[in-house]
Amino acid sequence: VTEIEVRLPAAERAYPIRIEAGLLDRLGESIAPLAPSRIALITDRTVAALYLPRARASLGGDPLEIVVPAGEESKSAAQLHEVLDILLGANLDRDALVVALGGGVVGDLAGFAAAVALRGLRLAIVPTTLLAQVDSSVGGKTAINHPHGKNLIGAFHQPSIVLIDPTTLRTLPPRERASGLAEVVKTGLIRRRSLVERLESEIDRLLEPDGFAGATDILVDCCRIKAEVVRHDERESGLRRILNFGHTFGHALEAATDYRHWRHGEAVALGMRAALDLSVERAGLPPDEAARGRALIERIPTPPLDRPLDPDRLRAAVARDKKAAGGRIRAVVLESLGKARDEPVEIDRIVEGALSIVG
Amino acid sequence: VTEIEVRLPAAERAYPIRIEAGLLDRLGESIAPLAPSRIALITDRTVAALYLPRARASLGGDPLEIVVPAGEESKSAAQLHEVLDILLGANLDRDALVVALGGGVVGDLAGFAAAVALRGLRLAIVPTTLLAQVDSSVGGKTAINHPHGKNLIGAFHQPSIVLIDPTTLRTLPPRERASGLAEVVKTGLIRRRSLVERLESEIDRLLEPDGFAGATDILVDCCRIKAEVVRHDERESGLRRILNFGHTFGHALEAATDYRHWRHGEAVALGMRAALDLSVERAGLPPDEAARGRALIERIPTPPLDRPLDPDRLRAAVARDKKAAGGRIRAVVLESLGKARDEPVEIDRIVEGALSIVG
Repeated sequence: VTEIEVRLPAAERAYPIRIEAGLLDRLGESIAPLAPSRIALITDRTVAALYLPRARASLGGDPLEIVVPAGEESKSAAQLHEVLDILLGANLDRDALVVALGGGVVGDLAGFAAAVALRGLRLAIVPTTLLAQVDSSVGGKTAINHPHGKNLIGAFHQPSIVLIDPTTLRTLPPRERASGLAEVVKTGLIRRRSLVERLESEIDRLLEPDGFAGATDILVDCCRIKAEVVRHDERESGLRRILNFGHTFGHALEAATDYRHWRHGEAVALGMRAALDLSVERAGLPPDEAARGRALIERIPTPPLDRPLDPDRLRAAVARDKKAAGGRIRAVVLESLGKARDEPVEIDRIVEGALSIVG
Repeated sequence: VTEIEVRLPAAERAYPIRIEAGLLDRLGESIAPLAPSRIALITDRTVAALYLPRARASLGGDPLEIVVPAGEESKSAAQLHEVLDILLGANLDRDALVVALGGGVVGDLAGFAAAVALRGLRLAIVPTTLLAQVDSSVGGKTAINHPHGKNLIGAFHQPSIVLIDPTTLRTLPPRERASGLAEVVKTGLIRRRSLVERLESEIDRLLEPDGFAGATDILVDCCRIKAEVVRHDERESGLRRILNFGHTFGHALEAATDYRHWRHGEAVALGMRAALDLSVERAGLPPDEAARGRALIERIPTPPLDRPLDPDRLRAAVARDKKAAGGRIRAVVLESLGKARDEPVEIDRIVEGALSIVG
């Protein structure tokens, strides 16, 4: 046998996340160093009504504008190909830049379109929701959904820049704010005890419309922590898994309710309660630490169920999780507040944990 | 402004290309070290009729089999989503392996499906055409076509292993062999003068069905040269562009005839003739070297046109090329036989060159 080894260049890659009140009105100067040949601005109808005129004015030039319907339904193959038809119909070249203005749905859809159009266009993310600002805009995950499950078709496509304007959080509906705060709490629980302590004194204020006006540094902390984790593990083979704390339970709860009852972060908040119990059982988390984590999480409002969950649907949802293999799934547990690791857990134990929280 | 830098890990990646007669009957042992949880074997009807039973037997186990229609039409969004529906419906996990058995179309389609299913499944390529063995299976390019042009939607997705069995070339139609030989000649012209010299004495034999039986080392040379180029430039920002020698003209010829008249390699053979003239004009290639290159290329048969090309269609095709920007396109020129570089060239000059070859 002749064997040739193909070595690929180990290119150092890095991108900046900028966080500043009013950045939405200075998008043009922020992306100018990227020297795009053309800008394709992708957003949804809700965000377009609030921020498209300002974004357009601050980008300058004559951006190609693509406005998709708001909501998870836009993360579909049909919507992806509509976006691609417009991008490719505009005869963009490889120096074009896709700007994703909006929350997680827009970031996932526009990011995936950017990943595959001409085998990869550059991407600037301008996240306008708390969840997107602290979580989904860092790490390069993009995806659409498939009838068999969420985010089953996608790519890792790192942005060239992320521009966060915290003033966009003022217009966020309360449930969206709660959903984002769940990921903020998660970030503290897995990696920064001091953030947990700070949230214990400030979380109620952060749930208010202007809560982040004086707390931009919490956004900075969350981005920094996630960036640090992603730096060590771009493709989610090791350390990055800890970002899924609460998510294995949360995904199952979302899937078993057809993604209609809870927002993602709300389901993660519920999932983290189950994950704290699991941590006591499997990772030696002291019960008083678990109680303290639970007390913090419970300050995030989550809508109660009006009927019990079907255990079979929960089990099917867990088994279908991308991270499941051989009857087990790698779930994240805490050894202490601020210190996480992952652990293979039986699918039945996940189902049981999810049921214990929502009855 | 707070600015956080996200650094991504510069992971060293490498994969092997194995080349050996009879490898098709030993696929299982070659991929065993990858320890796939499940195998999804993707091929087309033509290749399935010839090699699917042997591939299935040698893989062992119970592979998921996906057989798509033969031909370029399978590089469509509709076909991609059919493949994804089957992959995702089979509930594969991230340790699954996609095996692409066939020529460039299968490699591009299966490779792209592997790139985006669950945000990336591992890929083993078993190329069965000369073009795929020397060219498309090295470098990680995957794509489908779009009504606006070929390969406009795709990804860079590097395989985990490439397994080349030269005995599959025996069943290749003569025009497919000629098409592949054009890329072999190209490889010599851009990077290895000694390969050009060898082809000058052996090309007629290589056009015969068993031509590669005693010349496996030419396959090895081509893979090695391409691997060396890709190593320095995974994403086609610099050196890798030289692999496009003849392709700017060739793509335009293919597009202006709706991809129906010539095979890809045949169009590249014609394109290389135009590129040699351009090289004399713009890169100081000595005219006698150009004549020598042209004499070698002309030994590859290409079907003549039965009517003249429409210059406007040619111009539109060149302008739509992914590599065009600002009225120019980076075309590859030779400084000598075996030494290439790229050069910005006016779109009109490309149109003129293409017309000069085919009238």
